[in-house]
Amino acid sequence: MALIVQKFGGTSVGSTDKIMAVAQRVLASHRLGHRMVVVLSAMSGETDRLIGLAQAMQPIPDPREMDMLLATGEQVSVALFAMAVKAAGGEAVSLLGDQVAIHNDPMHTRARIDSIDTACIQGHLNRGRIVTIAGFQGVTDHGDITTLGRGGSDTTAVALAAALAADACEIFTDVEGVFTTDPNICPQARKIDRITYDEMLELASLGAKVLDIRAVGLAKRFGVPVHVRSTFTDTIGTWVVEEDKIMESLLVSGITYSKKEARITIKTVPDQPGVAAKIFLPISDAGILVDMIIQNTRDGKLTDMTFTVPRTDYDRAMAILKKVAGEIGAEAVTGDRDIAKVSIVGVGMRNHPGIASTMFQILANEGINMMMVSTSEIKVSCIIAEKYTELAVRSLHDAFALDKDNLPLEDA
Amino acid sequence: MALIVQKFGGTSVGSTDKIMAVAQRVLASHRLGHRMVVVLSAMSGETDRLIGLAQAMQPIPDPREMDMLLATGEQVSVALFAMAVKAAGGEAVSLLGDQVAIHNDPMHTRARIDSIDTACIQGHLNRGRIVTIAGFQGVTDHGDITTLGRGGSDTTAVALAAALAADACEIFTDVEGVFTTDPNICPQARKIDRITYDEMLELASLGAKVLDIRAVGLAKRFGVPVHVRSTFTDTIGTWVVEEDKIMESLLVSGITYSKKEARITIKTVPDQPGVAAKIFLPISDAGILVDMIIQNTRDGKLTDMTFTVPRTDYDRAMAILKKVAGEIGAEAVTGDRDIAKVSIVGVGMRNHPGIASTMFQILANEGINMMMVSTSEIKVSCIIAEKYTELAVRSLHDAFALDKDNLPLEDA
Repeated sequence: MALIVQKFGGTSVGSTDKIMAVAQRVLASHRLGHRMVVVLSAMSGETDRLIGLAQAMQPIPDPREMDMLLATGEQVSVALFAMAVKAAGGEAVSLLGDQVAIHNDPMHTRARIDSIDTACIQGHLNRGRIVTIAGFQGVTDHGDITTLGRGGSDTTAVALAAALAADACEIFTDVEGVFTTDPNICPQARKIDRITYDEMLELASLGAKVLDIRAVGLAKRFGVPVHVRSTFTDTIGTWVVEEDKIMESLLVSGITYSKKEARITIKTVPDQPGVAAKIFLPISDAGILVDMIIQNTRDGKLTDMTFTVPRTDYDRAMAILKKVAGEIGAEAVTGDRDIAKVSIVGVGMRNHPGIASTMFQILANEGINMMMVSTSEIKVSCIIAEKYTELAVRSLHDAFALDKDNLPLEDA
Repeated sequence: MALIVQKFGGTSVGSTDKIMAVAQRVLASHRLGHRMVVVLSAMSGETDRLIGLAQAMQPIPDPREMDMLLATGEQVSVALFAMAVKAAGGEAVSLLGDQVAIHNDPMHTRARIDSIDTACIQGHLNRGRIVTIAGFQGVTDHGDITTLGRGGSDTTAVALAAALAADACEIFTDVEGVFTTDPNICPQARKIDRITYDEMLELASLGAKVLDIRAVGLAKRFGVPVHVRSTFTDTIGTWVVEEDKIMESLLVSGITYSKKEARITIKTVPDQPGVAAKIFLPISDAGILVDMIIQNTRDGKLTDMTFTVPRTDYDRAMAILKKVAGEIGAEAVTGDRDIAKVSIVGVGMRNHPGIASTMFQILANEGINMMMVSTSEIKVSCIIAEKYTELAVRSLHDAFALDKDNLPLEDA
């Protein structure tokens, strides 16, 4: 008899009928004898509705009051879910962040979980109840509600699984698991059965939305086995586990892409200490996140600085940099919105330095020019022209044989 | 500089625009130097929306989960209100029942307030903040949310005013105050400037909806001056105060009516001990509230028993009583749905035993027959045929000169 934490997202609890179906699903596991802890998000659309109300009051809503407001979304879900379980003949109790208690830090709208008391949950579990916990929220030492930000319910679920030493944390969503790439642009995309925490971290940070990156980091830190699966089928999804739980690591596990960035180049910057700070400080002061940065020295005295920013911040960044360029004596500032980032991820590439060059060759074979490259131990990302995105993803998926179940393996 | 508790009902905070207007109104008082505590209901329609969701899950929703669900309505209101105050340049903080803390008993959906901690509120007031508190809700010793039932936010406001020793508790609503009778059926109805707690208790129990009866009882017990007034005008409303605060008591302060009852008569019941219990026990076991009861002994051995029940329970009551009638050997059970209760209320009548007979004469002059009469120290209620309701109210209003400001007075 296992202790299982199950998290259902907004689309899974988007209507009273769907909540009823989820209750039946959880009850089925409960009747097998498992101890069940359920974490719910707000019903789909509800968080946006509340944000709309808030923005009608205050253009930039007060963060404390925003948390007070948004926390109601999950509260509604857990109350309705507990009713649904009871209507179906089961026993359930709903708990809010402060009732558990989930102790958060005081950073409103982007809090972190400091600790979780498990006594209250264990008490209810011992009485045979399905314990239903509002995701996304916790309480500070001063009794204020703070929320974890978008995707926070994933983090709540993994943190609860860690605190309870649960046997598994199952993340139910509207897709069947983690795929080798986006099935919408690559029909050969295949569901991955097992993936390592590190690979999942890279995929999540590169734009795969199936699992929140903070939740993956927490799962890795506490060794929580995470099962990403569909609410609407009984199919096994993707297990996110430690590397040693996977017998054979694939060279490349997944391919991601992002069309949400833009590229900026500052040409012919004097190559002196402090110049980079002069460029990037005003950017970060404006709250703009810089992703990839590449510096090419030209002749030992002058350099080009190229980097990417979120496309939505492109205009602001250009305005700031044109001002900075004058101050530091740069020749020009140029930019390009129409780029995409295509990345390959796999723990197997740790021992295969040749993977990056294989990727470059595959892209070259298709006539796709790379504008920037960035690598980590288990990832290679390339910036290319946006129009080649789908072609690049499909070519890489095909060349690395991700549609095949087990090949090519890392020959470790 | 006063400490004022202001409560705004659902229609007063029914949209973001209305919340903004209420915030401006409260800020105006705050800028005069008053310490402001604001109690809010859920936005109009929200509680019904949530009840609809609950009933879709469970025909009779679990009371604990119902409280968990409904409490979100007020939480949304207070968060939005605090944002509105801040948007208008003021300082505000929202607090939930458990954050205050308002300690409730554990009776879900119909809890009572046991006690209120004022330290948290005072702390925020000392920092110059408008303290905005979710009405209707509190927390039990076990950390569960319990709610006070419909009208509960009035009770929250008065209880807070009592605990804080506030100078006044202002109940803002969609009418201008307490009227001598319903202006919809009697255009001469006049707003009452001052009314005693006892009169207000009678009016509230007789169907005047402007102020929750529990709130009035609490105000009386703790001597909280209550000001019932309109959200949408600056007009002074009705002050509900202790009797000694009103120099001259009116003989009749107000006239109410109710069309929500039905009358049942059990004819020729043996006049024996225990018979009344045999009649009323099955009725109360069925959860039916009996209001007026009149027993007429016919010849020392037989009696008629007449009483009123809510019209919505009439059919159930008749079915039960037809069964009981056979068991106790009664002659017949008859009933009448088409009745109304018309009542006059006034502390002045304490010293004027003649008021009841004046009322009877006024009704007789209009050819209105009285079916039942019930009196208290400060109230006379008559059951009449429903079709005469408006005529009776207008005649009484006119005869007791309630459209005049100060006459007739009690000649004490």
